[in-house]
Amino acid sequence: MSRRTTGPEIERLIQLLAKLPGLGPRSARRAALFLIKNRERLLAPMALAMAEAQEKVTICTACGNVDTVDPCTLCTDARRDRTTICVVEEVGDLWALERAGAWGGLYHVLGGTLSAIEGVRPEDLSIGALIERAGAGEVKEVVLALNATVEGQTTAHYITERLKTLGIAASRLAHGVPVGGELDYLDEGTLTQAIRARRPL
Amino acid sequence: MSRRTTGPEIERLIQLLAKLPGLGPRSARRAALFLIKNRERLLAPMALAMAEAQEKVTICTACGNVDTVDPCTLCTDARRDRTTICVVEEVGDLWALERAGAWGGLYHVLGGTLSAIEGVRPEDLSIGALIERAGAGEVKEVVLALNATVEGQTTAHYITERLKTLGIAASRLAHGVPVGGELDYLDEGTLTQAIRARRPL
Repeated sequence: MSRRTTGPEIERLIQLLAKLPGLGPRSARRAALFLIKNRERLLAPMALAMAEAQEKVTICTACGNVDTVDPCTLCTDARRDRTTICVVEEVGDLWALERAGAWGGLYHVLGGTLSAIEGVRPEDLSIGALIERAGAGEVKEVVLALNATVEGQTTAHYITERLKTLGIAASRLAHGVPVGGELDYLDEGTLTQAIRARRPL
Repeated sequence: MSRRTTGPEIERLIQLLAKLPGLGPRSARRAALFLIKNRERLLAPMALAMAEAQEKVTICTACGNVDTVDPCTLCTDARRDRTTICVVEEVGDLWALERAGAWGGLYHVLGGTLSAIEGVRPEDLSIGALIERAGAGEVKEVVLALNATVEGQTTAHYITERLKTLGIAASRLAHGVPVGGELDYLDEGTLTQAIRARRPL
């Protein structure tokens, strides 16, 4: 805005909100006005929640999960199978698997994928720490739950090779038709994989 | 999440973020992870900005704008024409007009529109305060910049009638083709209005 329309504190809040993924300048203004309209119910609690998160959030030194304790809640959960590790690219992927209740073992967050173009080398990811964890004795299987992208698959291949030298089995997620998905809308690669990996009924 | 995946402070932050307009549960999680990844650069400043906004933000008692001073920056700006008032539904509309640099007079935020269905009566909006401001002597024209919806136009009609008794002229925004708009995509109502209100070249 060329001339000032509102207070500098509010413009600063809008600028910061606009940096969040999924919010552009327009929706950031809407969000700021919504927060201000709901000062007691939303703005005050959110200021507090952010200050608390800022103070308490830590990254688990074992698996890379985001939590307020280190090692994280999942790593110290006695009910989880400690002989299997599921490797994911980002913390969001770990949370997605947990929401689905799809995995009962441990996790390992890589922090990204190898990429020649973006110059991401093995030492830029937590691959060394994964090999160390996997080789420490207890672990029998490593599931590579990486994205089905070129970078994800390159990274999976690299990790598989390194695990082979330790004699630890690596596996990947199944490809196929998403549950609830319509065949007509699926790409040819997925359909081919789904046919090849068909299961007897 | 049935079992806990992360700290309660982080889940609380996600829940609050999900209440913002434009963010659902999934994008709230993405936003929370993004904030945590950028703790120093974004989370800490945003916690501070929200606390400051919470402390300092006020609603202008004259026009209803959101600001950190009362009366607001716009109401005290000596360069603005004090004989004209532009009436808008919400603060966001006021900010939109200001961004466009479209208006040099004063503003009045109604806080909504009349609605029989939702039970919004004249006394639920700041219509009384508007009539008082308009009748105080200086004001010569009131522009009703309300949305082109049934509720917006009903409200505009009601206000026009009340201003008539004070002998103050009311006007509304022009209807027509949006600048940069393609005729092919416009609704019939807009096209009809644009033809009727055609201007000589």
